[in-house]
Amino acid sequence: MTTPWRDPALSAAARVEDLLSRMTLEEKTAQLYGVWVKADSNGEDIAPDEEEMREAFDFDELITRGLGQLTRTFGTAPVDPALGARALARAQRRIMAANRFGIPAIAHEECLAGFTAWRATAYPVPLAWGATYDPALVEEMARHIGRDLASVGIHQGLSPVLDVVRDPRWGRVEETIGEDPYLVGTVGTAYVRGLESAGIVATLKHFAGYAASVGARNHAPVRAGVREFADVTLPPFEMALREGGARSVMAAYTETDGVPVSADPHLLTELLRDDWGFTGTVVSDYFGVGFLETNHRVAGDRAQAAHAALAAGVDVELPTLRCYGEPLVEAVRAGAIPEALVDRAVRRVLSQKCELGLLDEDWAPEVASATGPGRIDLDSPANRALARRLAEESIVLLDNPDAVLPLAPDIRIAVVGPRADDPLAMLGCYSFPSHVLPAHPGTPLGIEIPTVLDSLRTELPDAKITYAAGSDVDGDDTGGFPEAVARASEADVCVAVLGDRAGLFGRGTSGEGCDAEDLRLPGAQAELLDALIATGTPVVALLLTGRPYALGRWHGQLAGVVQAFFPGEEGGPAVAGVLSGRVSPSGRLPVSVPSRPGGQPWTYLQPPLGLVGAASNLDPTPLYPFGYGRSYTTFAWTDFEDGGGEGEVSVTVRNTGERAGAEVVQLYLHDPVASVTRPDVRLIAYQRLELEPGAASRVTFRFHPDVSSFTGRTGRRVVEPGALELRLGASSVDVRHRVQLTLTGPVREVGPDRRLHCETTVRVAER
Amino acid sequence: MTTPWRDPALSAAARVEDLLSRMTLEEKTAQLYGVWVKADSNGEDIAPDEEEMREAFDFDELITRGLGQLTRTFGTAPVDPALGARALARAQRRIMAANRFGIPAIAHEECLAGFTAWRATAYPVPLAWGATYDPALVEEMARHIGRDLASVGIHQGLSPVLDVVRDPRWGRVEETIGEDPYLVGTVGTAYVRGLESAGIVATLKHFAGYAASVGARNHAPVRAGVREFADVTLPPFEMALREGGARSVMAAYTETDGVPVSADPHLLTELLRDDWGFTGTVVSDYFGVGFLETNHRVAGDRAQAAHAALAAGVDVELPTLRCYGEPLVEAVRAGAIPEALVDRAVRRVLSQKCELGLLDEDWAPEVASATGPGRIDLDSPANRALARRLAEESIVLLDNPDAVLPLAPDIRIAVVGPRADDPLAMLGCYSFPSHVLPAHPGTPLGIEIPTVLDSLRTELPDAKITYAAGSDVDGDDTGGFPEAVARASEADVCVAVLGDRAGLFGRGTSGEGCDAEDLRLPGAQAELLDALIATGTPVVALLLTGRPYALGRWHGQLAGVVQAFFPGEEGGPAVAGVLSGRVSPSGRLPVSVPSRPGGQPWTYLQPPLGLVGAASNLDPTPLYPFGYGRSYTTFAWTDFEDGGGEGEVSVTVRNTGERAGAEVVQLYLHDPVASVTRPDVRLIAYQRLELEPGAASRVTFRFHPDVSSFTGRTGRRVVEPGALELRLGASSVDVRHRVQLTLTGPVREVGPDRRLHCETTVRVAER
Repeated sequence: MTTPWRDPALSAAARVEDLLSRMTLEEKTAQLYGVWVKADSNGEDIAPDEEEMREAFDFDELITRGLGQLTRTFGTAPVDPALGARALARAQRRIMAANRFGIPAIAHEECLAGFTAWRATAYPVPLAWGATYDPALVEEMARHIGRDLASVGIHQGLSPVLDVVRDPRWGRVEETIGEDPYLVGTVGTAYVRGLESAGIVATLKHFAGYAASVGARNHAPVRAGVREFADVTLPPFEMALREGGARSVMAAYTETDGVPVSADPHLLTELLRDDWGFTGTVVSDYFGVGFLETNHRVAGDRAQAAHAALAAGVDVELPTLRCYGEPLVEAVRAGAIPEALVDRAVRRVLSQKCELGLLDEDWAPEVASATGPGRIDLDSPANRALARRLAEESIVLLDNPDAVLPLAPDIRIAVVGPRADDPLAMLGCYSFPSHVLPAHPGTPLGIEIPTVLDSLRTELPDAKITYAAGSDVDGDDTGGFPEAVARASEADVCVAVLGDRAGLFGRGTSGEGCDAEDLRLPGAQAELLDALIATGTPVVALLLTGRPYALGRWHGQLAGVVQAFFPGEEGGPAVAGVLSGRVSPSGRLPVSVPSRPGGQPWTYLQPPLGLVGAASNLDPTPLYPFGYGRSYTTFAWTDFEDGGGEGEVSVTVRNTGERAGAEVVQLYLHDPVASVTRPDVRLIAYQRLELEPGAASRVTFRFHPDVSSFTGRTGRRVVEPGALELRLGASSVDVRHRVQLTLTGPVREVGPDRRLHCETTVRVAER
Repeated sequence: MTTPWRDPALSAAARVEDLLSRMTLEEKTAQLYGVWVKADSNGEDIAPDEEEMREAFDFDELITRGLGQLTRTFGTAPVDPALGARALARAQRRIMAANRFGIPAIAHEECLAGFTAWRATAYPVPLAWGATYDPALVEEMARHIGRDLASVGIHQGLSPVLDVVRDPRWGRVEETIGEDPYLVGTVGTAYVRGLESAGIVATLKHFAGYAASVGARNHAPVRAGVREFADVTLPPFEMALREGGARSVMAAYTETDGVPVSADPHLLTELLRDDWGFTGTVVSDYFGVGFLETNHRVAGDRAQAAHAALAAGVDVELPTLRCYGEPLVEAVRAGAIPEALVDRAVRRVLSQKCELGLLDEDWAPEVASATGPGRIDLDSPANRALARRLAEESIVLLDNPDAVLPLAPDIRIAVVGPRADDPLAMLGCYSFPSHVLPAHPGTPLGIEIPTVLDSLRTELPDAKITYAAGSDVDGDDTGGFPEAVARASEADVCVAVLGDRAGLFGRGTSGEGCDAEDLRLPGAQAELLDALIATGTPVVALLLTGRPYALGRWHGQLAGVVQAFFPGEEGGPAVAGVLSGRVSPSGRLPVSVPSRPGGQPWTYLQPPLGLVGAASNLDPTPLYPFGYGRSYTTFAWTDFEDGGGEGEVSVTVRNTGERAGAEVVQLYLHDPVASVTRPDVRLIAYQRLELEPGAASRVTFRFHPDVSSFTGRTGRRVVEPGALELRLGASSVDVRHRVQLTLTGPVREVGPDRRLHCETTVRVAER
């Protein structure tokens, strides 16, 4: 007879209970932590990454009790995917052989903008996805990412980031989808669907509040009240759980109003599980459980940290066993921590392993294709085509006053700037070449990343193209200015390619731990742009950045402004396509572009008091508003129709120009009077429309009152009666049509089953 | 028989009830609003200030129903104090004659840094009071301010500001006492005691949260959680009510987490009255009731705004009747607002009038001395002496590496900078000359305000002093640089007098509505300082500012750094005294001085996560920490003694130098582990010691566990058991002695009767 926990005929719950009952305390706790390992480039056995772990231990000794998670086999050093997969499979065999039950680990990896592995596709960063307003395309990308992860034996991906931008100075803005919860929620949910459709556990992060750290300093405390938290921070997570089916959530490093997330049972248990019905695993951010002792000081030692985190609802400590290892075991033995807390977490981990098939007798870690070097292609042509399309859709044309863009094919172009000829200019800090390769000098990038200069030469073979870097990304060296100015002076147009260098912990101008003091362009780039403009040659500023920068200094002086948020390995051709006119730009801003560099933070979700007023000399009005973006073609918005006071609104959008292009129809809600202050407008629906010249589509949004709900005085989410205004527009300020509505009846509480969307329909419109 | 409400033998409550019962609805509501009036300089009858009111009305018609408040008779135009007092008395006679009951108005005025009236003493700003760490002296100043207000017929002063600095970019930082709630609470309470001791109603403002507006933009929404609000924002108000006996509170303009203060019954009624037992009046900030409709949109019209504000607990609308006038009357008549809400507010106003004697038959508005021009001296020698002493105690010596200070008497000094020869450089935006006179060009200042240049010439008659402005305060004109550089080059030392110009709503670089994008010195002053340093002449930077500015750019390059926060009319001589050595500097920083201009906000009250860490490239460590300041003499801290584990700590401080001087002994609390994150350290006691050369004092602080209380997980204020560390120091980082303590017992809730202080004793120490 089969042991019950091995019996696939039994329910997962029954199997897990049986298994749990057979485990020692050490075996149980071993399921609750991870070990950071790496496969080296020769495909030898993986080994603990003692540098990353910041301690040494014996892997073989450790795995005798079992192991919950394997951390980032591919994430620390360049390894051929097939060799890495083989090494991972061998490691799983060792783990299975070492523990009494033969249970393998869950293997997880980063996949923020594609699988963070050598030779894997580097897609555009999430902020670029936000700019596409195209969730379906993001879902398709995530499906490809998921398949690639699965193809090397990975079970869980530590994405997506669902933090809503609250301060654009934060270094991790590039990892977010934007400053609007609905945009973040819809695009993030699409990512989750794609990843989960490939069988990969998606991990929602950073739950919750992380992006609002004070002063935009990474890990700094978060100042926020319950309403801001409920109405801005939480909705994307709720949507991605309800509609995306994500199976894991990562507890954020931070604290809000004095309560660290990892010690917050209200957030991790009452809200997440009791209210929202989540049944997956909550994993810590790396070393985050230990933070309760060292960085928050709400625990006096590691055992207390383990206790607080387990009690709050952190099931898995990543990527270490500092707290959930020996300190936890000893404290349970001493009676200081109830074993029931351990059991609760282990049940969740084992349930997930059961669901992934890891408890099945016939589960094998080997993946079919991993038979030799080069046999796994993580950067397939299909991937690259997706990366290209995402990049193309994400590029935002901010200004083109004299129609200098698209560039004429036989023009003299000075391509200038520190971002013009660096492949890494295309990537955010979680793409492998910028994330890992700086520690492995001399290693090839592993993927092809054409630069802007390369791509323009390819795209415009008849143009006369010259190049000068002009300056570095940061630092104040202006030694390259004269040559750059000379090149610009000789040209018909100057394309100034400026922006960020993504990096980790102070090694870049954008990325994790690379926070900005203010929103000035880094280094001497502002002065370089001044110098180029002074030549009199028309200058097109092309920004390759991880965050919005203040552009008011040059307002009215530029022949063109093109904003690309790290557009990935196909970003060069995409940008060149926009400049040449092969691609009509169709991105829309997922974040406001400020006019001035200081006075932060600001996002567009302001109540009236947060908008410009007479009370302060500081005018926070952005230069380019949320939702804004131009095109090479023109669109007519016609035939507005309101559905008889029911909150239905329709519009026909026609491409009235000569080129194909895409328009993004946006619906905003304005709530004129409420019991608490409300943002002047907020996005509640949108629809991207791809239109050939002359073609038209008719979009209908049907508003649902639940969508107007917010957290009222009592702390409960309510729909309030009264007047509402729907604003149909081409950006958050470019309103094309308004619909007045009145909700009647009493104040109504709504819960986690409320409607999250307006109903959207699109049909081809007749001429 | 006397009408009961006129009968001084009856209780105030009985008199008020009787009077209330006799009033029509219009008469009642008339007690709930003010009118902004002004006395012109000829002493003619006062008239409504239609420009400030932003509407026109007939004063005689209006007062037939009575009038609650008269707003700022002296505050809009220069008027001789005696003529103004006479005009005010005549206005009161008109008001008394016009209403059936003969009740006068409460007359209120601004008195932020002295009575905001022409020819009245301009004391240092509150931030300078914070720098003195000398509450007794502040109390004495406030007593003088109170007497001056009373001498012209004023009843209520709209001070003190008890906002705790949360973002140094905010324009009103100059009006605050600092970034620590205990310092703000103790110094602010001293001010209240002084003002109230003169019979003037003190008004605590801005209740509460205002200083934490996001991006430091004046009036912007406040992001804060309940713990930050309870533990940082509220304590100074609680202390000033409990220990200062303030009789009025002003509702702040802002909202916190979506709830506007003026519509918040939790704050204005449950907390303020039910928990804290406050029985005085809550007044609106100017036009703040109407903000509920226009700036917060939690009310659909003026009547709804009136309803929300009255229900929350705003008793008086200032300085207008926009909402509490006709809209309120009509809504009560229509049954939309319960008359009981009106009655509740009227009772509070009439109780205050009764207490002030304004319901007594023999009350007369005429003040004895107001018989002719020049007969009231609001800038007496005693006032000036106080202003001088405050200014001297407030100046902070930040650096003096080569003992260039004090200056030799016969030295060649180049006095350079846009603040060197402007009397207004000494004043904050609420002193009359900067507050009102800009609108009355040609009017004399009314008080003598020696500039730094004047004062240095007086102070150092044997020195050879040259002068050049060098630049303006703001703007980028560098045309004056060459002359400034020439003067500096010819001198033995250059005193660079830099800083702010206080003004209102964008007309200054500091002051209400003059918020800073970042903490760079305004205009071209940073470049001017660079140019002066480049001469090679030793440069002493003397900062006359309303906020701290980032000084890291010049660290190690200056021969001296002296920080004065707008030191008032006697600031020039005080500064000159410090430079000459007549005065040994003794101020200590009430706010941190940052190193870099961006990355704000930051204050020293950070939990571990807010201190510098590996997670961000931005290092918020200030250049000069909270509590820091140097002296010309030296102090020995000896004979530390701990009171046997009871939390008593003693130290002897001896002046070991050749000059008299003052040391400020500071006690900080470090709470190593708590249930919520706690600031690494916070100030819990301090003692300023004036010591002649060789003299010594022994200070003993006796800690009380209540002082360690904070708002715990449940939202209640608790004392938690466990280890604590008391840190005795000369600043927040310069720790001289530590005492370890352990609190035992269960978690204990504490309420509004908890101990707020450590017990402090000082005695002269023997040699």
